Amino acid sequence: MTPEWVKDAVFYQIFPDRFRMGAGPPASPAPVYSSFEAWDAPPTLRGFKGGNLWGVIEKLDYIKEQGFNALYFCPIFSSTANHRYHTSDYFQVDPMLGGNTALRKLVEEAHQRDMRVILDGVFNHCGRAHFAFQHVMENEAASPYRDWFHIYKFPLNAYAKHANYAAWWNNPELPKFNTANPECRAYLLSVAEYWFQYGIDGWRLDVPNEIDDDEFWREFRRRVKAQNPEAYIVGEIWDDATRWLKGDQFDAVMNYPLGRAILGFVGAEVLDKDLAAKSGLGRLESLGAMACHNRLEELFRRYDWDIVSAQMNIMTSHDTPRIYSLLRGQLERVQLAFAMLFTLPGAPTVYYGDEIGMAGGHDPDNRRGMIWDEARWHRSLMQTIQQMAALRLSLPVLRRGRYQYLYAQDSHLAFARTHGQSSVVVTVNASPEPWRISVPLHGLWPRGEQAVDLL
Amino acid sequence: MTPEWVKDAVFYQIFPDRFRMGAGPPASPAPVYSSFEAWDAPPTLRGFKGGNLWGVIEKLDYIKEQGFNALYFCPIFSSTANHRYHTSDYFQVDPMLGGNTALRKLVEEAHQRDMRVILDGVFNHCGRAHFAFQHVMENEAASPYRDWFHIYKFPLNAYAKHANYAAWWNNPELPKFNTANPECRAYLLSVAEYWFQYGIDGWRLDVPNEIDDDEFWREFRRRVKAQNPEAYIVGEIWDDATRWLKGDQFDAVMNYPLGRAILGFVGAEVLDKDLAAKSGLGRLESLGAMACHNRLEELFRRYDWDIVSAQMNIMTSHDTPRIYSLLRGQLERVQLAFAMLFTLPGAPTVYYGDEIGMAGGHDPDNRRGMIWDEARWHRSLMQTIQQMAALRLSLPVLRRGRYQYLYAQDSHLAFARTHGQSSVVVTVNASPEPWRISVPLHGLWPRGEQAVDLL
Repeated sequence: MTPEWVKDAVFYQIFPDRFRMGAGPPASPAPVYSSFEAWDAPPTLRGFKGGNLWGVIEKLDYIKEQGFNALYFCPIFSSTANHRYHTSDYFQVDPMLGGNTALRKLVEEAHQRDMRVILDGVFNHCGRAHFAFQHVMENEAASPYRDWFHIYKFPLNAYAKHANYAAWWNNPELPKFNTANPECRAYLLSVAEYWFQYGIDGWRLDVPNEIDDDEFWREFRRRVKAQNPEAYIVGEIWDDATRWLKGDQFDAVMNYPLGRAILGFVGAEVLDKDLAAKSGLGRLESLGAMACHNRLEELFRRYDWDIVSAQMNIMTSHDTPRIYSLLRGQLERVQLAFAMLFTLPGAPTVYYGDEIGMAGGHDPDNRRGMIWDEARWHRSLMQTIQQMAALRLSLPVLRRGRYQYLYAQDSHLAFARTHGQSSVVVTVNASPEPWRISVPLHGLWPRGEQAVDLL
Repeated sequence: MTPEWVKDAVFYQIFPDRFRMGAGPPASPAPVYSSFEAWDAPPTLRGFKGGNLWGVIEKLDYIKEQGFNALYFCPIFSSTANHRYHTSDYFQVDPMLGGNTALRKLVEEAHQRDMRVILDGVFNHCGRAHFAFQHVMENEAASPYRDWFHIYKFPLNAYAKHANYAAWWNNPELPKFNTANPECRAYLLSVAEYWFQYGIDGWRLDVPNEIDDDEFWREFRRRVKAQNPEAYIVGEIWDDATRWLKGDQFDAVMNYPLGRAILGFVGAEVLDKDLAAKSGLGRLESLGAMACHNRLEELFRRYDWDIVSAQMNIMTSHDTPRIYSLLRGQLERVQLAFAMLFTLPGAPTVYYGDEIGMAGGHDPDNRRGMIWDEARWHRSLMQTIQQMAALRLSLPVLRRGRYQYLYAQDSHLAFARTHGQSSVVVTVNASPEPWRISVPLHGLWPRGEQAVDLL
């Protein structure tokens, strides 16, 4: 069984360095604040803007008001990278983010607002600054950590172009853990457990397919669920995830295929495909309504319904251009895409700033400092998201109801969500022209029942 | 005022990787135990033998039985070096040593036995694996830690022969902290404070003269004494230390000059001067009794008596060859040298294993695994140390009494220690021949008092 709360969740994804620099006690070792890049300057690959968890705490009410009740954080552990996917220490929240103290406070404050918190776990590899790897760098074969990694040759060439040890995408910055080594494996699993002491609600797993060992993930699941049976385990799997979704590994995956279907349909000819192609989204196709429906239905049939309704549905993230840019600034299409996302089965996930219509191209441009100047917010988009989130939260059928095909042609899609006695009909017009149609309801409602326009 | 307890202290110096591998819960990240070097194999520059704090706890009773009541530990914080002078994380006891849990237990167990614990603090520089330095390695000028160091040029050449940033002895492994930077300074001072939560009794300061800033050390003292007014602050200053011993910086220094005087006198023509010359001891001189006395007296006059009686008197350490080897295995001379050390003003300090007569040449040979096979112990030496320690602990005059010259000629030295009504006469015969002499006592005892042979 997947966690019930996820079926009710609307996720807000936060890239911690870029959301907000809040006031809080400095953690140790403390950065020099005057060294941060200007918040509004274009992001750079190596620069830091100084966002922290104190800032997130300050804005929890803002996030809640937009309709979100769950936070998914890009990595927060000590790291030498602004995105923090290069972990230095899995037991320390990055000092720039406020350290462990800030995380404890954040989870507390979130829970007080009935909001959940999941963290990003990078278990396949660490950053080359990790203690165990540095130990091998210095001591080579004499290091009692040498078996933590897959070393091809000494001395290690960690600063050359191609690593002479196993590394993610052969990138020397990211030495791959030898998860078959008992000490290394125990370490990683203890990390997975440890943070539940801080009250976290689950893990988003970075590139889990790279750990080609189902038993690792089974043990991971057992250990995590023992800490919190309602913990959410969601894998970053961009394509078919059947292998991991048999109930013994992950609860769900990041449902980019669903996001691609929405973007392909709603974006149609407007979509900036070249921009998308540079990212994990790959080359997007413009999709007619039927093609979109077929893809959606295939996704909903592929996995157990319990999983489908707990998928992390996502269109854009720190790994893709922003939706505003992918849809070339056509706000109405952005609104429509989000409206679809909120009416489909699975937990809608919104990348910070997408709710105000921030622009952003290829990494690092998709990681700009969050705009807090309200004059620059796209209010109509915010209202759509607030409205759709409220609708979803008020109607269980939108969260747990089955997907039922009604109509699909050209730019016009209609589907229903049905749950027990209740049904909702969703019609999507992806063309700029008005659309009037009679949708056959196939006995969705009991005879004589009156449909109500919810928008 | 220097701490009273130091005047009563007999220090045992422990090099943690080499004292004893004890049983305790593994810390994280855990080393692969099968990767440790054999305990009895000759030490290597980069190898680890797996000694830990659990092992020290197991042997506290042994240490106490030898007459020691204070422990001085070479560095114990996370480090990629077997000597741990290359600090990775100042807030973590090295996982191989048992982590913070082991230190807490160790201090508790030591205090239960009325033993004190001081730690080695390396505040001038860190190891290149330290988070702040790694941050600058990765992000260069974009790192908010760049001002923590003195950078001459980017990119940093941390793995070249000569560092393009300030480093200890220009060694790229050891980037020098910029202690003028407020964040860096605050970090180091917070380290000094932090470990008093674990109950430590003081700091031995590594190369403190390299931080050429008296105000840093004044602040250090204020912060440390605020944590524990009886904390001992002892600097590694090999020569004249007047600058730091005015009462506002250190309590005392490592009194190698006193050790050199003893070695020069007792070692005489036997002394392996070439071996000594490779170490911090420098080229030792063979000293006649008068030269030895002159040096001692000069040392006792140079500083306040309160300081003299709290000096860390030391002949050999992890930075020198072992006394057994310096004196070419002549056990009687080793015994004599220790006997002198224990009868002079200041706290005698013995390097682990020297009490059983371990041999050891230049680093790393002076860092062999402690011998626990009792058949290999030099019992006569152990007995001398036990006896002298017991004598010192039973006679306050040996701990607090003034030094008074009595006689010095050739290989024969006699001095008294006097304290209030009590006096002790010490006669040292550094020749292989018997020595009979009438020593003029200059009214040391009240008329009619009978002297007692204490040995």
